[in-house]
Amino acid sequence: MKRREFMKKAGFGLTAVASASIVPSALRSQETSLPNIKWRLASSFPKSLEIIYNGAEVLSRRILELTGGRFEIKAFPAGELAPPNGVLDAVEKSTVECGHTCSYYYHGKNKAFSLDTAIPFGLNARQMNAWCYYGGGLALSREFFAKYNIINFPGGNTGTQMGGWFSKEINGLNDIKGLKIRIPGFGAEIFSSLGAIVQRDMASADIYPAFAGGALDAAELVGPYDDEKQGLYKVAQFYYYPGWWEPEGRMAFYVNKGQWEQLPASYKAAFEAASAEVDALMLANYDAWNPSAIQRLVQKGVKLRRYPDDVMKAAYNTAQKIYTAESSKNPDFRKIFDSMHGFQRTSDIWNKMAENTLANFMQSLM
Amino acid sequence: MKRREFMKKAGFGLTAVASASIVPSALRSQETSLPNIKWRLASSFPKSLEIIYNGAEVLSRRILELTGGRFEIKAFPAGELAPPNGVLDAVEKSTVECGHTCSYYYHGKNKAFSLDTAIPFGLNARQMNAWCYYGGGLALSREFFAKYNIINFPGGNTGTQMGGWFSKEINGLNDIKGLKIRIPGFGAEIFSSLGAIVQRDMASADIYPAFAGGALDAAELVGPYDDEKQGLYKVAQFYYYPGWWEPEGRMAFYVNKGQWEQLPASYKAAFEAASAEVDALMLANYDAWNPSAIQRLVQKGVKLRRYPDDVMKAAYNTAQKIYTAESSKNPDFRKIFDSMHGFQRTSDIWNKMAENTLANFMQSLM
Repeated sequence: MKRREFMKKAGFGLTAVASASIVPSALRSQETSLPNIKWRLASSFPKSLEIIYNGAEVLSRRILELTGGRFEIKAFPAGELAPPNGVLDAVEKSTVECGHTCSYYYHGKNKAFSLDTAIPFGLNARQMNAWCYYGGGLALSREFFAKYNIINFPGGNTGTQMGGWFSKEINGLNDIKGLKIRIPGFGAEIFSSLGAIVQRDMASADIYPAFAGGALDAAELVGPYDDEKQGLYKVAQFYYYPGWWEPEGRMAFYVNKGQWEQLPASYKAAFEAASAEVDALMLANYDAWNPSAIQRLVQKGVKLRRYPDDVMKAAYNTAQKIYTAESSKNPDFRKIFDSMHGFQRTSDIWNKMAENTLANFMQSLM
Repeated sequence: MKRREFMKKAGFGLTAVASASIVPSALRSQETSLPNIKWRLASSFPKSLEIIYNGAEVLSRRILELTGGRFEIKAFPAGELAPPNGVLDAVEKSTVECGHTCSYYYHGKNKAFSLDTAIPFGLNARQMNAWCYYGGGLALSREFFAKYNIINFPGGNTGTQMGGWFSKEINGLNDIKGLKIRIPGFGAEIFSSLGAIVQRDMASADIYPAFAGGALDAAELVGPYDDEKQGLYKVAQFYYYPGWWEPEGRMAFYVNKGQWEQLPASYKAAFEAASAEVDALMLANYDAWNPSAIQRLVQKGVKLRRYPDDVMKAAYNTAQKIYTAESSKNPDFRKIFDSMHGFQRTSDIWNKMAENTLANFMQSLM
């Protein structure tokens, strides 16, 4: 593969130029007029979700360093510039220049947004990166986001999430019937189809009292490090795994297209490089801090439970029906999903071989 | 956690400053005198290992973009500025300003170098990132590299490699005895301890004729995408997995310390951000291109085989003995290994839960 083709596949399309030899002079000619630029970033996250929220702070710091302090992005937590699920609108309308959010918050507008974050039984974190950068995924999702006047950048990942907090054990499919669970998006559709009573939009702050008052039997959150701080183990002692509706959980940076186009090439490069760095660091951060958090939770009396096989299988089959139905009526969804799904099939075969055989061997020794 | 503490844990120690408010003016004051800098990079890799070699090209391109063309790093393939295993010396002595290499090429100098690349039954790619950036790993390895006048940066990853090409089947430990295998580093020590006849330093170009002439029964390479081009399947039809001696395979960028210290802060930031981006992109690239390569190899008649359990277990036990022996006589090794090993224990428990339960479920459907 030629270098130009490699660069293109590597997702450098926005700022890449034709050959290395013309870069220096092209960029130098702009340098005499590099502007001071101040942007605001609307985060969908509170500061208490520190690993995720800090993604925006790390982005901001790195861009300041890279641009000699000229390009300053100030991050604001959820609610200050936009509500958590209002970042898409705010960036689309250029109320703010950029945001940090989860695209599946906009599932209600178009279910194709969920493909940018996570779908049940979909790609894991490494597969998501591989598909985005070298499997055409980022190009496809950018085509979709262009309809909203937005350029999207991968902006962090949680890895596979946990499967939620339950006040009673789930021993099989029958126990899902009538279960009162708080869960959004495709996960909600699957649980609903399996007979659960689903709360899609309950605010985080309302979850704990809802458990205490009996209005909830179960709730999905994130993973051990974030969940420990919420304290749900005091009202729901069973902690299920795996979070099959989030095999990974990807954040995204959104940039208003008009604002982006006004940036000098070196500032665009700074945003791209810094967001790629945040994307990798956030996953590393979760991978480093979740292991001790799960141990602390167990010490506090939390009981770990694996989802029963019949629940997993029924959920998987329901997910495939939902994807087929959505694909038949939503061309945005179909186009991205088909690419993602095709990628996953061959990727899963390869992962089963070297990566997972070794992981299973290591874990068999514990 | 406070932001300063987070930034420190995130490995931003080299360029981080105390608070965002002082960054702009501090950096602006330097900007009037930003120099044009040209560096040469000695790669340990040939252009034919395109995914790895291109890591240096992507780094170079991104740094050019980020610095307005002022900081130019020209990459040279293996042998042009230094031999593949001569990059450490060349950077240490400032013969070249920087390099792109695998630290385990320097296993013969000090076995602690292997901890920067991969060790048998060690961390996988995500764990390596987590340990480096948030588990103290990068700080420890930099302490070690400082003895060689070098600052090291994570510079790409292959993921779990394959377990090598064999001209005959291995049905158990007995088949390892007398096996003529080409493998370097700790893998060589384990195979040797299990009774194999080990070729540690055979050049890549000599492998194919050695198989054809009967001087080799087995050879370790990388993974499907790279190995397909070597064509060993024509002389060795069995392709074993997993590559238990490389649960991940990390590349590194080396920078001469004196050269690094002469860089303006924004150029240091550019190198850090660009190398972090390369690190993430290379793994995504392998994850994207290996799946179709393994399918093509199977179509060409390659027979996939899993290492027998008794070989895996004997290799694991031998590895632990080697680590204990090395730790007892090599304080550099012990200090880094203890940190890595402690991290792995809690990390494997967590990975078994959400991430691997879901991966195994998905793969059970195939």
